[in-house]
Amino acid sequence: MTGRDGGADIGPIGNSPVVILVRPQMAENIGTTARAMANGGLFHLRLVAPRDGWPQERAWRAASGADRILEAATVHATVDDAVADLHHVFATCPRPRHIVKTVLTARGAAIELRAIGDRGLRSGLMFGPERAGLDNEDMARADALIRYPLNPAFMSLNLAQAVMVMAYEWWMATDDTPPRALMTNETHVATKGELNNFLRHLTADLDECGFLRNEQKRPGMIRNLRHFFERGEVTEQELRTLHGVVTELSRGRKGRPKD
Amino acid sequence: MTGRDGGADIGPIGNSPVVILVRPQMAENIGTTARAMANGGLFHLRLVAPRDGWPQERAWRAASGADRILEAATVHATVDDAVADLHHVFATCPRPRHIVKTVLTARGAAIELRAIGDRGLRSGLMFGPERAGLDNEDMARADALIRYPLNPAFMSLNLAQAVMVMAYEWWMATDDTPPRALMTNETHVATKGELNNFLRHLTADLDECGFLRNEQKRPGMIRNLRHFFERGEVTEQELRTLHGVVTELSRGRKGRPKD
Repeated sequence: MTGRDGGADIGPIGNSPVVILVRPQMAENIGTTARAMANGGLFHLRLVAPRDGWPQERAWRAASGADRILEAATVHATVDDAVADLHHVFATCPRPRHIVKTVLTARGAAIELRAIGDRGLRSGLMFGPERAGLDNEDMARADALIRYPLNPAFMSLNLAQAVMVMAYEWWMATDDTPPRALMTNETHVATKGELNNFLRHLTADLDECGFLRNEQKRPGMIRNLRHFFERGEVTEQELRTLHGVVTELSRGRKGRPKD
Repeated sequence: MTGRDGGADIGPIGNSPVVILVRPQMAENIGTTARAMANGGLFHLRLVAPRDGWPQERAWRAASGADRILEAATVHATVDDAVADLHHVFATCPRPRHIVKTVLTARGAAIELRAIGDRGLRSGLMFGPERAGLDNEDMARADALIRYPLNPAFMSLNLAQAVMVMAYEWWMATDDTPPRALMTNETHVATKGELNNFLRHLTADLDECGFLRNEQKRPGMIRNLRHFFERGEVTEQELRTLHGVVTELSRGRKGRPKD
């Protein structure tokens, strides 16, 4: 169990939006919310009238080490009090309501929240109670609503999952990880020279064993092999292994008594 | 409680990637995984050697109505068996490993999975056991790894949260919801003509009450009011309310005895 004064170092506390849980019911959900927040770099938590009071040991047990967020969380009697020092507030609203308000996707909201922060302004993200969600009075206090574009036939996120999607988009709004990359901790992608060196080795041994004896088909067969090895971004380490495979297979053949 | 043969209609079952839970430990997590899947339009679930056997009533209780996914889930003894009919398999891997493999972001993976499906090929997404994650043998069976770009100082997703992020990106890969829109169920954004009509009403009443009596400042004051009302994409319904506000305030003043 993670103690009340322990927890992980969850990174620098930046000018990130405040997460405001309005009338949260289950202390576990406050804990899993803190966990989701920490993953996405959201660090400021405010609780409006939590049903079971605050603090609650069960929140810490569910937070997986995001203790700093729970320890710094503040409790407020009303939404008005919780948002009083904020310049912009967005409210998550899973179901359509009869209301006239700007609606943002999670991705759109994350981009706007980054822009708000860049202007030195403070923002907040309101999430409603587990069952009912935010009521009309809560939503009237928001600049805009956030609705996630998800399967309309099954839209049922729990509180921490809803926070997770928003925290993820907040992080992604400034992330520049390439969508596809080769992870090579101890090796590097082979150069064409290294690859050709291996293909020469392979071809020589295949010539020797007679696999390429059909002179007419020989160029096409070599080309097919080359196509395969060119395709997969082979690494220098893998080429060394493949050199060994070819050498050992040839040696086995050479060591075998002639039949 | 949601029964074993009930559950929500979770939408059409498309050519979506198979979610493969490898050696999942807690039945609740299988249920919350199904719930996360349904939100993002992932419908095919396979379980490799679930620790407590299958089916488990607790999974259904945690699935919030995503019963169809649990009922159609298949159980496999090995990863090889679970992926045998798939053309491409991606493996989620939260921690860096000493391994040479393509690494995709969740967003990058979602785009590639859509492309694979568009070619009529079947794909899978592997998720490891709750504590340890996938082992090296599991990962060797994947075309590529998926790693979410999240807070490196606190990267701790539970199984359903990890599935949620991937399901969300799968959905988003083809979603075209505008990132910002005005939700107007019963009204529409006011035309400039409607807005000017209101501003004429307001100006006339302000002239009458003397608020704009300083002839030098009058144009600037009107312009400032206009700037405010132009800013917020006022709706036709709101303008009607504002007309009423101005009329009633004026009537109050007019009805008051002269002092």
